[in-house]
Amino acid sequence: MLAARTRPFTSAAPTRRAVVTHSSLKLYTNPASRGKIVEWYLQEIGVDAELVNLDLKERQHKTEDFMKVNPFGKVPAMQDGSLSLFESGALLTYLADKYGKLDTPEARARASQWVLFANSTLANSVFVEQFREKSMPDVMGNLDKILAGREFIEGDAFSVSDVAVGAYLLYIPAFLPQIDLSPYPNVVAYMQRMAARPACASTVAARATQRKEEEKAAAKN
Amino acid sequence: MLAARTRPFTSAAPTRRAVVTHSSLKLYTNPASRGKIVEWYLQEIGVDAELVNLDLKERQHKTEDFMKVNPFGKVPAMQDGSLSLFESGALLTYLADKYGKLDTPEARARASQWVLFANSTLANSVFVEQFREKSMPDVMGNLDKILAGREFIEGDAFSVSDVAVGAYLLYIPAFLPQIDLSPYPNVVAYMQRMAARPACASTVAARATQRKEEEKAAAKN
Repeated sequence: MLAARTRPFTSAAPTRRAVVTHSSLKLYTNPASRGKIVEWYLQEIGVDAELVNLDLKERQHKTEDFMKVNPFGKVPAMQDGSLSLFESGALLTYLADKYGKLDTPEARARASQWVLFANSTLANSVFVEQFREKSMPDVMGNLDKILAGREFIEGDAFSVSDVAVGAYLLYIPAFLPQIDLSPYPNVVAYMQRMAARPACASTVAARATQRKEEEKAAAKN
Repeated sequence: MLAARTRPFTSAAPTRRAVVTHSSLKLYTNPASRGKIVEWYLQEIGVDAELVNLDLKERQHKTEDFMKVNPFGKVPAMQDGSLSLFESGALLTYLADKYGKLDTPEARARASQWVLFANSTLANSVFVEQFREKSMPDVMGNLDKILAGREFIEGDAFSVSDVAVGAYLLYIPAFLPQIDLSPYPNVVAYMQRMAARPACASTVAARATQRKEEEKAAAKN
């Protein structure tokens, strides 16, 4: 019923890391969805998953079968053994937690904080029109100050928090090309660092570029 | 510099649970903020914290001192030893995690999922005008189906997920009294169950009632 394809991440994953194959790990997604954010992180940690692409025009995300995975009928969602999970941010922290990247309550708290920041505070301040004028300069201005002294969002090391925040940032020029990011040079430099990572380049950054091209093509017609 | 008051949760906490006093745990809040959600959960788990109320009119949330706790200058925020944390949902899951309520990656994933659902999907579908017409019936309708067969959001037992989802639900009639919740009877019954819990009654439900009265008073003038 669901269109399934297995996509090996082996070739794209950094060669120094072993790729862990988990045939039980299934990511239900769609190329235009936030599933790309989860694909980015899977590649970063070298974990393989079965990708199940749902055709949204055919309403495959609203079938009885899929509503058992995500009762809200949205992608991305994940299954891992008996666990069914939705909300892209929860997929990210689950993977980080399960694969040993978040070993203490404090580390998990920081990841939760940045994922919630990305999916609610940052997303709302930029992507929700009624909040943009009032909230964006404040949120992006403070983010710029934080990133002035850091290579990554939590400090010196790449983490799942960079995937959450980086992805939303990279979608800004893709979905809202009219927004001027030049007042936030540290944010722009951070976006460039993230987009240059191979795992991001082949997932979120590729999707952002594709979206920009769709915009340009639409503007010509 | 910051107006501090210590509020003992001892008397309000259920008598069968020991109250754990952590003088290092500080909740920076304001009575009108989402800090009330964190107060609800602190009472549920019988954990004491020092409440630091910031006067937002005096811009105490934008002082140099407080920006070290939350670089975005918003309440609620928390300090616990060397950990500084913001985003109300991250405060909730940190407390649940630290105090032994989330013992496996699966349990933590479910909590993350529902906190993200509450703070982004549910909040946006109801409280953001541009999404309401299209999203609210879908999100609330599916939530109603889920709650048809369950006393709590995760099943048979109360959890931090109930605080996250329950609080946002209880704020709907308080902030948007024009919204008709009668198409979602299971959600309404769930809201009543949550509001009847002593820890909710004295925090989030009290704040919701106060807000409704402010609305009525404003409408009379």
